[in-house]
Amino acid sequence: MNNSLKGQKRIYLDNAASTPIYKEVLETMMPFLTEEFGNPSSIHKEGVRARRAVDEARNSVARTLEIKSQGIIFTGNGTESNNLAIFGYIKYLHKAKKLAYQDMEVVTTKIEHPSIMGVTEELIDLGVTIKFVEVDERGIITIPALEAVLSEKTVLVTFAYANSEVGTVQPVLRLVRRIRKYEETMGKEIKVHLDAAQAPLWLPCAFKQLGVDTMALDAGKCNGPKGVGILATRKNFDLLPIMQGGGQENELRSGTENTAGIIGMAKALELAQLNYVERAEKVAKIRDKAIAYLQEKIPTVFINGVQGEDRLANNINFSIPNLDTEYAVIYLDTHGIACSTKSACAGAGGGESVVVKILTNDATRARSTIRFSLSEQTTLDDTKYAIDVLATHCEKMILV
Amino acid sequence: MNNSLKGQKRIYLDNAASTPIYKEVLETMMPFLTEEFGNPSSIHKEGVRARRAVDEARNSVARTLEIKSQGIIFTGNGTESNNLAIFGYIKYLHKAKKLAYQDMEVVTTKIEHPSIMGVTEELIDLGVTIKFVEVDERGIITIPALEAVLSEKTVLVTFAYANSEVGTVQPVLRLVRRIRKYEETMGKEIKVHLDAAQAPLWLPCAFKQLGVDTMALDAGKCNGPKGVGILATRKNFDLLPIMQGGGQENELRSGTENTAGIIGMAKALELAQLNYVERAEKVAKIRDKAIAYLQEKIPTVFINGVQGEDRLANNINFSIPNLDTEYAVIYLDTHGIACSTKSACAGAGGGESVVVKILTNDATRARSTIRFSLSEQTTLDDTKYAIDVLATHCEKMILV
Repeated sequence: MNNSLKGQKRIYLDNAASTPIYKEVLETMMPFLTEEFGNPSSIHKEGVRARRAVDEARNSVARTLEIKSQGIIFTGNGTESNNLAIFGYIKYLHKAKKLAYQDMEVVTTKIEHPSIMGVTEELIDLGVTIKFVEVDERGIITIPALEAVLSEKTVLVTFAYANSEVGTVQPVLRLVRRIRKYEETMGKEIKVHLDAAQAPLWLPCAFKQLGVDTMALDAGKCNGPKGVGILATRKNFDLLPIMQGGGQENELRSGTENTAGIIGMAKALELAQLNYVERAEKVAKIRDKAIAYLQEKIPTVFINGVQGEDRLANNINFSIPNLDTEYAVIYLDTHGIACSTKSACAGAGGGESVVVKILTNDATRARSTIRFSLSEQTTLDDTKYAIDVLATHCEKMILV
Repeated sequence: MNNSLKGQKRIYLDNAASTPIYKEVLETMMPFLTEEFGNPSSIHKEGVRARRAVDEARNSVARTLEIKSQGIIFTGNGTESNNLAIFGYIKYLHKAKKLAYQDMEVVTTKIEHPSIMGVTEELIDLGVTIKFVEVDERGIITIPALEAVLSEKTVLVTFAYANSEVGTVQPVLRLVRRIRKYEETMGKEIKVHLDAAQAPLWLPCAFKQLGVDTMALDAGKCNGPKGVGILATRKNFDLLPIMQGGGQENELRSGTENTAGIIGMAKALELAQLNYVERAEKVAKIRDKAIAYLQEKIPTVFINGVQGEDRLANNINFSIPNLDTEYAVIYLDTHGIACSTKSACAGAGGGESVVVKILTNDATRARSTIRFSLSEQTTLDDTKYAIDVLATHCEKMILV
């Protein structure tokens, strides 16, 4: 276990919070951080080259997601993409006088990312009704649960492809099919927004495999740069911007294009989706062995979320009841291991995991969560070392 | 005139649209584009180092602007900063039940950046009244013009420090003093938002020299990276976010922090403000000589905006009536010169300049504008060469 020696490598198990920019991604960005600094809206050569690079990035994303390039909106991050998708669509329905806020219902779950939760709260202020579809103890939306909340007023259903804390992957296509069937029966339109920030490295993101209307992505979560995201939409999806200005991104996201970031995002997404099947298979094997090892070394552990295929390949989320997991994360950190108690966006420190609380209805488990999120570089030995250190810590705390 | 030879250097006169990232700025960013990829909200070492870097950047900006670091909000660009300042404040007044939308008036001009224009249009939809203060033929807001629009309902006054098209610099402190006096007389609060995107390289940006309440900045306009901006606010300024999520940036701008961008923004702003006086003096001399040379070579030219001190040091905006200036800009481009007809955000190509139309009420002048925006590297010879090429083009077009 050389890993613990001073100056030795760190074991980074917080890839759900942030990923390194891949060298190949940074290389595509570098010209646009140096000599190629033109504004894509300028008509001279510097501008034209920047515009061409942004267009190529857009085409690349369109190919990766198998949609029309016109449907790709580059944003500042996944949070902005989620805000734009939901608020932008509801605002469209309102402003186009399709429906009054009071006649709209939005369906979501109680285990969404704070950006989804936050927008739905804003919608409530406007008079929109939010209906929460129940998830089971694994975090999965079942068809009966979905059926129970759909109504003639439903205009939008939004959920995460994979939960960022416990890694539960939703049966997207199955849920979408049920929604489409309901649309048909009711003779009304229901849009589906997918928060796919955690997906590109591990799950298929092509639109035809998902059937959704809009999808949010974040470069910083798939080995691209921070500060850039995507809202991918079906062609001719009706949307209004949430910020006003020069009308960039097809009038939907104003502000000078972040050329380098956009190019990095496109490259990162392309690489992520290129071989996600092999990556996911490889990492899921390590994940499952690590979970087994964890259960062996710390028998009091509870694994949160779902087992097997429906779990994000790189996610291990568990509770050790009565352990101060914030302190444990810091102990692990001093032994060379970076991990978290829950989502960084939900406050990385103490407090209870809202997601685990909803799933288990067990406050003790919700207060004692730890998340390991692996990368394709993580080895089984890395995870075992982390578990050994954690087991030692638990012994000291007299919890094993 | 070697400049026109193939492979020779380009003369870039579109610095109002986009500036190159300075080497020293990129160097401060590079660690955060490579090994330092932690999420600032994570509690492990990688996260703590990222948090520290963001905090240091915030402190640096606070020192540069001479305000408290708590008042610095990092955003995605100047456009977002303008949206947040205006919409965020009006939304606060509404949600805190200070005032109904119908009882609020916002004062601005008709020569603002599209991001300001766009937000005010949104406000109109909500019931807020927008009052346009008149600018004179130079683009300046005079005290009598300001007095004519202030009313007991005024809650916010917003204008650009320097106009991005014609370079007119507003007498900020004088205007703010008049507003403060009006506040006192009326016993009510009026906030002042300054769109300072074009300012940092040429004008003082310390809050005490301006007296404003909020100020928008954009890294891409002052030799920093694209995709990052600042909204600087006075301490305890009341504001609500325009996007919802993890509550980063003091609950005012959610989304994982763009660490590298934030650090680059802080460095660029520091460098810009470090010696703006000398930079502005040097470039203003070149500007004035270039304007004289332009008037000599193309006697039919009209200079748009204001002369001397009240003009942004690097701005030359002029009209050559009846010239197809979009074609002229492309002709200049093929001869090695990058410039624009107007603001990139207002559509860099054809059409009329809204700003010049308002200033001159002359559609012919508004349809025939060209903007040269210099950098501190621009030489007098560069500008003379550009003017010579333009004069040759005008002769061909039989306009001189």
